[in-house]
Amino acid sequence: MKKLASHGCHGGTLSYYSHASTSTKCDMRFTVYMPPKPTGAALIFLSGLTCTEENFTTKAGAYARASELGLIIIAPDTSPRGDNVPDDASISLGKGAGFYLDATQAPWNTHYNMYTYISAELPKLLRENFPIRCFGLFGHSMGGHGALTIAQKHPDLFQSVSAFAPVSRPSQDGWGPAAFTAYLGSDTTTWNDYDATALMSRHTGPATLPQILIDQGLDDGAYKEGRLNPEAFAAACKSVGQPVNLRFHPGYDHGYFFIQTFINDHLHHHAAILETIK
Amino acid sequence: MKKLASHGCHGGTLSYYSHASTSTKCDMRFTVYMPPKPTGAALIFLSGLTCTEENFTTKAGAYARASELGLIIIAPDTSPRGDNVPDDASISLGKGAGFYLDATQAPWNTHYNMYTYISAELPKLLRENFPIRCFGLFGHSMGGHGALTIAQKHPDLFQSVSAFAPVSRPSQDGWGPAAFTAYLGSDTTTWNDYDATALMSRHTGPATLPQILIDQGLDDGAYKEGRLNPEAFAAACKSVGQPVNLRFHPGYDHGYFFIQTFINDHLHHHAAILETIK
Repeated sequence: MKKLASHGCHGGTLSYYSHASTSTKCDMRFTVYMPPKPTGAALIFLSGLTCTEENFTTKAGAYARASELGLIIIAPDTSPRGDNVPDDASISLGKGAGFYLDATQAPWNTHYNMYTYISAELPKLLRENFPIRCFGLFGHSMGGHGALTIAQKHPDLFQSVSAFAPVSRPSQDGWGPAAFTAYLGSDTTTWNDYDATALMSRHTGPATLPQILIDQGLDDGAYKEGRLNPEAFAAACKSVGQPVNLRFHPGYDHGYFFIQTFINDHLHHHAAILETIK
Repeated sequence: MKKLASHGCHGGTLSYYSHASTSTKCDMRFTVYMPPKPTGAALIFLSGLTCTEENFTTKAGAYARASELGLIIIAPDTSPRGDNVPDDASISLGKGAGFYLDATQAPWNTHYNMYTYISAELPKLLRENFPIRCFGLFGHSMGGHGALTIAQKHPDLFQSVSAFAPVSRPSQDGWGPAAFTAYLGSDTTTWNDYDATALMSRHTGPATLPQILIDQGLDDGAYKEGRLNPEAFAAACKSVGQPVNLRFHPGYDHGYFFIQTFINDHLHHHAAILETIK
């Protein structure tokens, strides 16, 4: 793991790192906000389509409150990168569009293994290098999809979860079907494993995650086009007894001015849950 | 004046505008943060080299506290723009490097009139379109130079002033001499009119500005290279009785992680002064 840069920020440090990933078979970048007094609670934020590790880090306005709450925050990139990594002209396939899954179809299946990267390789690397006691997971849009799916599959690893304007039912809506066809093939039964609503619908037994916080702007173009569908996910949660707090906000759109408005609510949501974890 | 985009943000709106400027003879862009309950106090933030209206707007984290304090914040671009506007390969001359002066030398003197734009045209346009009672002025790096020079020359218009890592003595230091030679010519006596330290040194009579707040990071590469020299400006203030609060911060560099750390202090500084203005 190589430190590329480090900046003083709200009494702590914001650093950029690079490492050779075994999951994605390329160098991956992420940022780490280390507060002045870390409590051991660490949040991983998954970004949306077209984003890198930069978007959340520079635009979300998260680090003032993270400093106060002692939260470590990690912002990884959204896909494999590099000249050898296949790409596509679409914004919803290839670089910047990893969809937090392990691709099974050529040419994507060599590098596009963001599911394994986020759910196993990155948390292990982070634990080895930083004073981390427990993890929360959150994200925006495609990264909200990543957070809601990965946290469901790894409730012991990611013990708190939230999302901003998440892609909630990608096997049916928006950018999902085209991306899933490319990455996973045309057998749609394989898609449910990466669909937050489908995963929640088939959940049996008591809730395994604490209450999930979801914020959705009502002036969000992607929402109005039916690409996000947080209601479908909330309905699935209700059907299986998973607590969810889905909040709608008139006047807010899909971008970082929306995220920065509600980011502190998310930080408090995670901190309140994670401070109870030994 | 044309509204290009508008986004909900901390209970108010962040909007992008464009207008045909008579000063710079091109279309100019700026952003306006309008808080939910504006008090009538408006701050103009002047950005640094290479920046546009985007940098402060997306990275400074100013709008949460601006919303609470009822401050309107305007972030203009740093230079004229467009295919007809002359440019230079250097980062410190041409587009993104207007230096908040009125150029006297060809080919710059047609469009590069950022001094008139910021000190006259833009405030007039803003007053005509928004509920503004009074103005404060602040900025970063080259924009700190702009704030410290323009506020000194227009203390009745800009009634509070602050700066982050300002270029404080450009007639002698850093990027200044080359840029001033191009924009103003080789007669260095004309340069003093755009040099915060020279302007303050020749000030006579009592202070005309309330206390000026300046923050400077000690890990700032530009500072360590002698390009900023806020000490020279503070010494000039002291010599003429102008109150100044120059604060140094170990561990902070020249970028927006530094600015976001101290932005709320600046907002409170301006709000406390401007709330006393009728």
